[in-house]
Amino acid sequence: MVKVGIVGASGYTGIELVKIFARHPQVEITFATSDSYVGKQLSDAFPCAYDIPLIAHEAAPLAEADVVFLALPHGASADFAKRALDAGASVIDLSADFRLHDAAVYEKFYGLKHHVPELLPQAVYGLPELHREQIKNSKLIANPGCYPTGVILGLAPIVRAGANDGTIIVDSKSGVSGAGRKPSLTTHFVEVYDNFAPYNIGRVHRHLSEMEQELREIRENATLIFSPHLLPVNRGILSTMYVKLSDGWDEQALRELYADTYRGEPFVRILPSGQIASLAHSVYTNYCVISIHAVPDVGQAIICASIDNLVKGASGQAVQNMNLMFGCSETTALL
Amino acid sequence: MVKVGIVGASGYTGIELVKIFARHPQVEITFATSDSYVGKQLSDAFPCAYDIPLIAHEAAPLAEADVVFLALPHGASADFAKRALDAGASVIDLSADFRLHDAAVYEKFYGLKHHVPELLPQAVYGLPELHREQIKNSKLIANPGCYPTGVILGLAPIVRAGANDGTIIVDSKSGVSGAGRKPSLTTHFVEVYDNFAPYNIGRVHRHLSEMEQELREIRENATLIFSPHLLPVNRGILSTMYVKLSDGWDEQALRELYADTYRGEPFVRILPSGQIASLAHSVYTNYCVISIHAVPDVGQAIICASIDNLVKGASGQAVQNMNLMFGCSETTALL
Amino acid sequence: MVKVGIVGASGYTGIELVKIFARHPQVEITFATSDSYVGKQLSDAFPCAYDIPLIAHEAAPLAEADVVFLALPHGASADFAKRALDAGASVIDLSADFRLHDAAVYEKFYGLKHHVPELLPQAVYGLPELHREQIKNSKLIANPGCYPTGVILGLAPIVRAGANDGTIIVDSKSGVSGAGRKPSLTTHFVEVYDNFAPYNIGRVHRHLSEMEQELREIRENATLIFSPHLLPVNRGILSTMYVKLSDGWDEQALRELYADTYRGEPFVRILPSGQIASLAHSVYTNYCVISIHAVPDVGQAIICASIDNLVKGASGQAVQNMNLMFGCSETTALL
Amino acid sequence: MVKVGIVGASGYTGIELVKIFARHPQVEITFATSDSYVGKQLSDAFPCAYDIPLIAHEAAPLAEADVVFLALPHGASADFAKRALDAGASVIDLSADFRLHDAAVYEKFYGLKHHVPELLPQAVYGLPELHREQIKNSKLIANPGCYPTGVILGLAPIVRAGANDGTIIVDSKSGVSGAGRKPSLTTHFVEVYDNFAPYNIGRVHRHLSEMEQELREIRENATLIFSPHLLPVNRGILSTMYVKLSDGWDEQALRELYADTYRGEPFVRILPSGQIASLAHSVYTNYCVISIHAVPDVGQAIICASIDNLVKGASGQAVQNMNLMFGCSETTALL
Repeated sequence: MVKVGIVGASGYTGIELVKIFARHPQVEITFATSDSYVGKQLSDAFPCAYDIPLIAHEAAPLAEADVVFLALPHGASADFAKRALDAGASVIDLSADFRLHDAAVYEKFYGLKHHVPELLPQAVYGLPELHREQIKNSKLIANPGCYPTGVILGLAPIVRAGANDGTIIVDSKSGVSGAGRKPSLTTHFVEVYDNFAPYNIGRVHRHLSEMEQELREIRENATLIFSPHLLPVNRGILSTMYVKLSDGWDEQALRELYADTYRGEPFVRILPSGQIASLAHSVYTNYCVISIHAVPDVGQAIICASIDNLVKGASGQAVQNMNLMFGCSETTALL
Repeated sequence: MVKVGIVGASGYTGIELVKIFARHPQVEITFATSDSYVGKQLSDAFPCAYDIPLIAHEAAPLAEADVVFLALPHGASADFAKRALDAGASVIDLSADFRLHDAAVYEKFYGLKHHVPELLPQAVYGLPELHREQIKNSKLIANPGCYPTGVILGLAPIVRAGANDGTIIVDSKSGVSGAGRKPSLTTHFVEVYDNFAPYNIGRVHRHLSEMEQELREIRENATLIFSPHLLPVNRGILSTMYVKLSDGWDEQALRELYADTYRGEPFVRILPSGQIASLAHSVYTNYCVISIHAVPDVGQAIICASIDNLVKGASGQAVQNMNLMFGCSETTALL
Repeated sequence: MVKVGIVGASGYTGIELVKIFARHPQVEITFATSDSYVGKQLSDAFPCAYDIPLIAHEAAPLAEADVVFLALPHGASADFAKRALDAGASVIDLSADFRLHDAAVYEKFYGLKHHVPELLPQAVYGLPELHREQIKNSKLIANPGCYPTGVILGLAPIVRAGANDGTIIVDSKSGVSGAGRKPSLTTHFVEVYDNFAPYNIGRVHRHLSEMEQELREIRENATLIFSPHLLPVNRGILSTMYVKLSDGWDEQALRELYADTYRGEPFVRILPSGQIASLAHSVYTNYCVISIHAVPDVGQAIICASIDNLVKGASGQAVQNMNLMFGCSETTALL
Repeated sequence: MVKVGIVGASGYTGIELVKIFARHPQVEITFATSDSYVGKQLSDAFPCAYDIPLIAHEAAPLAEADVVFLALPHGASADFAKRALDAGASVIDLSADFRLHDAAVYEKFYGLKHHVPELLPQAVYGLPELHREQIKNSKLIANPGCYPTGVILGLAPIVRAGANDGTIIVDSKSGVSGAGRKPSLTTHFVEVYDNFAPYNIGRVHRHLSEMEQELREIRENATLIFSPHLLPVNRGILSTMYVKLSDGWDEQALRELYADTYRGEPFVRILPSGQIASLAHSVYTNYCVISIHAVPDVGQAIICASIDNLVKGASGQAVQNMNLMFGCSETTALL
């Protein structure tokens, strides 16, 4: 049995981890922490059936866990990761604190000095489709952001093949759970319902840094415009991506490229011609569903990628990483 | 022209007042206040086209208004009403502060000592269908609560006729705008969407006090169970009400009773047999739409009443009251 | 391995069965049928990852299945059940065709002559909490309706104890998937969204017949008013039920009654004092979640019951029944 | 008084016309037709308070109207327009039948031979911001499509100024009412809710033809990729448009360009720097709300345009056109 600890169980990624663990035959929850529900049960924090006691973050018996999942805001995670590693546990961090290799980029996008930059070199960006072998051998996983997961998986083949020419346009639409559980006017029901709103469009959203880091590791000039929008639904991200193609690429060639790239991947699904990825393809699953559409008149292609931001975009991918790290079958509890 | 002031324009009832006034040929907005957007425009507080400057509550030039609309939380309204009346303005208070004739009942349900109980005798409960003549001659209107508006209009005929026998069950469902604009976990999009939740059920919700006050003025023993539920929509209240009938009442008799009661009322609509009131009948209108359904086997009747909580349940009714007070046609800006 | 056949896999209960089976280690899908997608895959009928071929209803190799799940409209199911039984398979029928013991009541509520009334005596009403032992030994299960599941579980203890006095009011609210997948104006997005609508209120909805049949088996005078409403969400039913209490019953006594009744039940959850059942308690689970609220002033109680109409109200309960019939652990694939 | 006839009053654009006319002091509804509700009232076709009799299309007394609004599917409209013109009425056609100047383009995009191509030369594309003077003098208005209205208004300044370089990406998101009231699986509540789906992406959607026609009248090489998506809301279209800028253009220059272009336009609103157009800016209004965002690093600009598809994208714009044609103030009934 893998003994897991959850730090920050009363947020949306925390409860999602618990739901997945309930179906995982090789996992035992050792502790779960919360800042706002200390001394209560998880069933007090959410309308759910999980009677798991919630203890204070500081009271977490880190040494008793094989792996600690950090579902904390960025900034708070970094210190906790160090404590958990020092206590001998592996760490899967769902915050942004270890995603960027370069502390200066982190500081620029997050407006924070990194607390433990000395740990950055050992952190692995936990996208199994790109870094599976490193993940297996790592003790510190930076679980990818929700937007980057779909965007990187959707664009990696095209970037690797050099099939793109110029700036790629990423128009993304996300459900509200991606914004976390802290109340604000932005997430007030009345402001979101019946509405649809772009925000942080252009080249300013924090997740742009992750996308370009990973894509530039593949090919250095990859450049994006990234425009997130808030969708009036709870879960799911759909990214519609516009790529000017370099010479010689058509839909058939793209289809072969994607099929080759993701052959055997358990959680990437390429739709057949005639189908377009929608939120419904991925929500409540760990799949990233991708569709490919050439626009021959104008030499472009449209790539649509759909994920559930709480599953493949957060907790599902975190468990996928744990499965890899602890020798479980990669798909356990995720199908 | 009627010169109006709005105290609390950056809440949902405040913006709704502004929208209605934009269509009112006899109204001129003299000032609008806000606590959170002082120095900004209404178009900074809402995604709207109204470039109306927002000043601090305390800076409101009360004496320059013919009538001041108070869209403040209960407790805060009472003092402001006194100041406005002292300055010579009429007051239409959208809070609960002047709805209950008895300060002790107010204290019991709202947990607050009433600040200006000396004003209670002159306050008129602003439900035109019950108190039209008093409204015309009043300077202080207690605009009814959202739930009570539909419930009282739906039950008044039956209670007046003595057609009910025993406790009436009121099962109400409300959109989220009724909870106000202040962020909280209860109104967080993710908690409300895909959900439907009863709250304060039984005999504990504050609005029960209003309903029973008004119905007991009609017949003294009127007693309700009132169970509100939070609907995942922005606007509208539907109340489904179960009445055990006293002898001799059938659907035909009830239909005649309601037709007689509301004949000529511009904003009460009784649906014909075969139609059931739904939210869609009333949202974005000032109508209270009522349907009547006898259940002959068991000697009961079901009354459904639908309103838009921000219009007939708040700002529309407030303007209806203003129209009565200032000699405008009652329906101006409300059709 | 249990070999299952699904007749009607391209409807909402069909796909839900497939999702549950994907997690069931002792089930193998032998065939899946559809009327509208013959020759296609399930992934053509739904945005999902299940590449299961869909054959015509008539082509179903019934004899190859241990159990056939019928996800067909009422009327169509009865004949199919006979064919499957004759072929040696067990049958779990998700339609209404075998729920009512009395063909005359069926005819009255469904407007159809029953096709195989001779099978009615052997059909078991598949509500495990009431009929677990009979289910284990049956070859023909009438899987309960969605509304009746929550209502019967919510009221059975009180009716059995004789704690109720007079007509019980059942005010139910359901998500739209309960209405099936066939397009109609009633289920058109624009008509449902932003709306909330009562329908078939009083004593006319078909499901009333099931509720009263089961409750009258417990105590013969049980009588309900049943008012369903259409909620603008996909899944879930919340029923708010109003019971006049007979003498001597208070909240404490009711709590003990429900705790005793459902002790050890894996899928009934009674909420502690202070919590109220909401849709979020049950959706995407096989739980029926119940909360109990006395209203002492007026001698009544409010019982709230929440289920997911597609899980405990249909496909989850069907699998729970299958688990019982085939000796699997009752909770397999359902937690 | 302008005497108006409505052909097709029981669809979403029909009821929206009626709502607007209810506030229009110079309009009198002469007749309203429907195919599915002949002999009934508008209040039977919608949950509304309009007791307007619905007659058969063929029974419409066209000669009694000053202007006939055609809210019919494309194909059906063309013939009706001819009849109405022959009867002496002006025509405002909300279908696509007269929007494309070239019958061959119509045939290509709509798969239909045009029935009355001889009328095309006299039809005016009813976008007041581009063709106000022609509209005033026309008897046959082709009311623009919903997507084209926002897209053309959002791009016209940039195209006229030659500020764009290469293919423009238009990523549009629309509420469901744009798909009409006819039930289909695509508009079934359960399929749309909790979902978000691209459709007809690339260069295949019918509305692309309108957009390019109008933009190419301004500058001949204008070329778009147009990707519509179905949003789970009832109303509103938001288009996010990506433009590669030609040399010398920055945000300041763009802001001046848009301010100059739309100065004095009553229904175009350019948001100040720091605000982004969202659905909430325009729904239930006749505004087209535009925001401008340069992305300097990559020499591009993002233009966001928001309209209500039923108001500025259909019935509101139709009334704006009528106001122009009949000498009413352009904004009457539309503020």
